[in-house]
Amino acid sequence: MNPTPRARELDEADRLAPFRARFVLPEGVVYLDGNSLGALPRETMSAMERVICEEWGEGLIRSWNSAGWFEMAQRIGSKIAPLIGAAAHEVIACDSTSVNLFKLIAAALDMRPGRTVVLSEPGNFPTDPYMVAGLERQGLAERRLAPREELAAALDENVALLMLTHVHYKTGAMHDIGELTRAAQDAGALVLWDLSHSTGAVPVDLAAIGADFAVGCGYKYLCGGPGAPAFAYVAERHHADLAQPLTGWFGHADPFAFSDDYEAAPGVEQLLCGTSPVLGLTALEVGVDLVAEIGVEPLHAKSRDLSEFFLECLARRGTDLDLVSPADSAARGSQLSFRHEQAFPICQALIARGVIGDFRAPDILRFGFAPAYLRFADIEQAAGHLAEVIASEEWRKGEFNRRAAVT
Amino acid sequence: MNPTPRARELDEADRLAPFRARFVLPEGVVYLDGNSLGALPRETMSAMERVICEEWGEGLIRSWNSAGWFEMAQRIGSKIAPLIGAAAHEVIACDSTSVNLFKLIAAALDMRPGRTVVLSEPGNFPTDPYMVAGLERQGLAERRLAPREELAAALDENVALLMLTHVHYKTGAMHDIGELTRAAQDAGALVLWDLSHSTGAVPVDLAAIGADFAVGCGYKYLCGGPGAPAFAYVAERHHADLAQPLTGWFGHADPFAFSDDYEAAPGVEQLLCGTSPVLGLTALEVGVDLVAEIGVEPLHAKSRDLSEFFLECLARRGTDLDLVSPADSAARGSQLSFRHEQAFPICQALIARGVIGDFRAPDILRFGFAPAYLRFADIEQAAGHLAEVIASEEWRKGEFNRRAAVT
Repeated sequence: MNPTPRARELDEADRLAPFRARFVLPEGVVYLDGNSLGALPRETMSAMERVICEEWGEGLIRSWNSAGWFEMAQRIGSKIAPLIGAAAHEVIACDSTSVNLFKLIAAALDMRPGRTVVLSEPGNFPTDPYMVAGLERQGLAERRLAPREELAAALDENVALLMLTHVHYKTGAMHDIGELTRAAQDAGALVLWDLSHSTGAVPVDLAAIGADFAVGCGYKYLCGGPGAPAFAYVAERHHADLAQPLTGWFGHADPFAFSDDYEAAPGVEQLLCGTSPVLGLTALEVGVDLVAEIGVEPLHAKSRDLSEFFLECLARRGTDLDLVSPADSAARGSQLSFRHEQAFPICQALIARGVIGDFRAPDILRFGFAPAYLRFADIEQAAGHLAEVIASEEWRKGEFNRRAAVT
Repeated sequence: MNPTPRARELDEADRLAPFRARFVLPEGVVYLDGNSLGALPRETMSAMERVICEEWGEGLIRSWNSAGWFEMAQRIGSKIAPLIGAAAHEVIACDSTSVNLFKLIAAALDMRPGRTVVLSEPGNFPTDPYMVAGLERQGLAERRLAPREELAAALDENVALLMLTHVHYKTGAMHDIGELTRAAQDAGALVLWDLSHSTGAVPVDLAAIGADFAVGCGYKYLCGGPGAPAFAYVAERHHADLAQPLTGWFGHADPFAFSDDYEAAPGVEQLLCGTSPVLGLTALEVGVDLVAEIGVEPLHAKSRDLSEFFLECLARRGTDLDLVSPADSAARGSQLSFRHEQAFPICQALIARGVIGDFRAPDILRFGFAPAYLRFADIEQAAGHLAEVIASEEWRKGEFNRRAAVT
C-alpha cells in the first residue's frame, strides 16, 4: 500500500522523522510493539563492541575503574532523571523492575511502622501485586486491591503504600498521578509509581507532584534491549530514612572495605545489590541517550498524533472496534487497545501481514505507538491491515492459534 | 623474559593449551584475576552480534519465542548443572548472586519455622552476610558468625541455615563441603553453598553431598562478562516446598495469564523474578559452553599445577612470602594469596609491569590461576615480576597508591 497524500503530508511535517534512521527496523514490518520491547538503536552495536572488545577484552578487571563501570548505575540513573522530573541523584539503574518494586515496597513498609497494607488496583501489571505477595507470605505486608474509582476511599489508616502503574499496560489509561499522590499522602501513606509504560513516551514530573518512590522499565520506550536493567527513584527527602532489604555489597557505603557488617550507602546507591550488569547497562545507556536527545515532550506530542491518526484511518475504512483506551489522547499513554473476543488470532493474522502488535489476555489487541521510529505511513498501513483482517475474517484460519508475547 | 626450558616443557605437555586461543587476551599482560572477572571468550562478540542485530533488531518481540529467549534461564542453568553435580532441572540462571542469596536464605527460613539463625563465618565474602542483614532488619532472621573451626559447635537448634562460600574469596581455602553439609543437616539446618569461586575451577558434586541450596557467580571462571547473571540451585527434594519472597511475574506458573494472584511456577523456575536479561545471559552462555567443553576435572588439575608452579618459581628466586592459602593444593581453590602489609602498592606495581592480580583489603595479594587460558610461561613471568617488585621495593613509589578492583 502506498501512503495516501494525508499520510505523506503528516510525515513531511514530522520533526522527529529523522530519528527513524537512528534505529534498526526490519524490512516489511510495521512495529507496533515498542511498548513491549523497544526497537534497536543503531548505536547499540558499536557501544557493545566497545564494552566487550575494548573494555572487557583488553581492559579486563581494570575497566571497573578506567572505563567507569562503577559509575554506570548512577550515571544512567542521572540521565533517566530528567525524563521523569527527578533530580540526578534520585534515580539509579539496576536490577529488574520487579526486584526494584520489592525494594521500594519493603522500604515504604519500613517507613510506616504499624501500617501493613499495600494498596493497588486489580488488573495492574501483575508483577506489581505479585511482589507484594512475597512480603505478604513473610507476614510483612497485606495486599489490598480496589478498582480505580474506589482507590481514594480505600486509603485508610492501615495503608502504608499506594502502588500503581501510571499508564495501564493493557488499556493505556493514565492515572491522575498528582491527585492520587496527594490523596495517598493526605491519608498518611506513601506512593510508588510504576512508570514502565510512561518513561520515554509520556511526560512525568515527579518533583512537581511530590512523589515518594517510582520504578520503571528499561526495555520499552527506553530501548535498552530485551530484559534491560530497570530503574528506581527515591525522593531526596526520603534518602536519610531509606532502608531496603536487598542489602548487597554494591549498595554498601564502602564495598571494598570487605567488612562483615552492612552499612548502607547514602541515597539511592543503597538500592544497588549485586555487581552492576555492565553489558545490559551499556545497551540501556544508548537507548536512554537517544530518548533524551529526542526529548519527552516532542515524543509525547507525536505519539498522540500517531494514535489519533490510527483511529482516523480505521474510521475512514468504516472499521468499528471496541476501544478500551481513553478516547481522549491526553488521558492515555502511547498506545491504543481494543477489546475483541478473537483478539488472539487477529493479532496473529496481523503478524503474518507484518504488523506486529500484541495480544493481552484474555481479549485485548494492543498497539503501541513508539514515536521515536514510527511514521504516519506505517500507522496508515497497519490500520489498513487491521481493517482488512477484520473485514475478511482471515483470522479464522487455524494457523493463527498459537501463543506469544512479552509485556 | 623468555620462558625457561621447564616452563616450555610444562606448556608443551599441557592438554588445555589449545583453549587459550579461544579467549581474547591483551598483549603484554599476564592476567591473574580471572577469579574476579573472567577473560573474554572469542565467541562472545559473535553471539552478541547475533542476539542484538538478528534477534533483537530483526526479530524484535517475536524473538522471545522464535529465538528461545523464554528458555534461556533454564537452558543455561541446565548447562551449569553438570559443572556442580546437579541435575539439569535443579539450576537456573538469573539475577545477581546477591539477589539469589536473598531468595534462598528466605526460602530456607520459610522451610524451618521456629528457627531464625543464619550461620556463617566472619570474613566470608561480604555480600553473603550482608544479604542476611536485610532479613534481620525485617525481623525474619538472625545472623550468627562463627570462625570456621567453631562452626560445627555453633549449629544449635536455632540455626535454620548454614551459609558458606565453598572456596574463600580471600584465602582460597576450601571448606569440607560434604562434612559441613552433613553436620548442618544432622543439626536440623539447611545448607546454602556459595560456589562463586568454585564453579568452573574446582569440581563440586552437590548431589553426592546431598546439598540443599547453592548460588554462584557468572563472571568469574564462567567468563560471562562484567556483572553477568548468576545462578541458583535448589535440590529437587525441596522443589515442592520452595517459597521465596521475590515473587515476580517471570516466576509465575502462567505469566501470560496476567492474573492478579501469584502462583509460583514449579521447581527452580519460581526463582525467576523480572524479565530475563537476554543480553547478559547470551554472554554467559558462551562462557558456560566453553567451560563445559574444556571440562571441570582437567581445569582443576591444571589450576593445581599452575599454582604449584608459581610457588616453585618464587622459591627458585628465593622470594619468601607469607602464604595464607592452604599449602596443599587439594585444599584450596584456583588461587594463591599472600599476606603483606604493603599488599596494595605491590599489587599496583605489578599491574604497572603488566601482571594483573588483585588486592583484597587490608593486606592480601591475590593471584587467580584461571586454567582455561593461562600458560605456565605466564606463571613464571608473573612470579619473576613479583620477585623483582619485592626485591627492588619499587612499590614504595608514590604512584602505586590509588584504589581499584572487584571480587
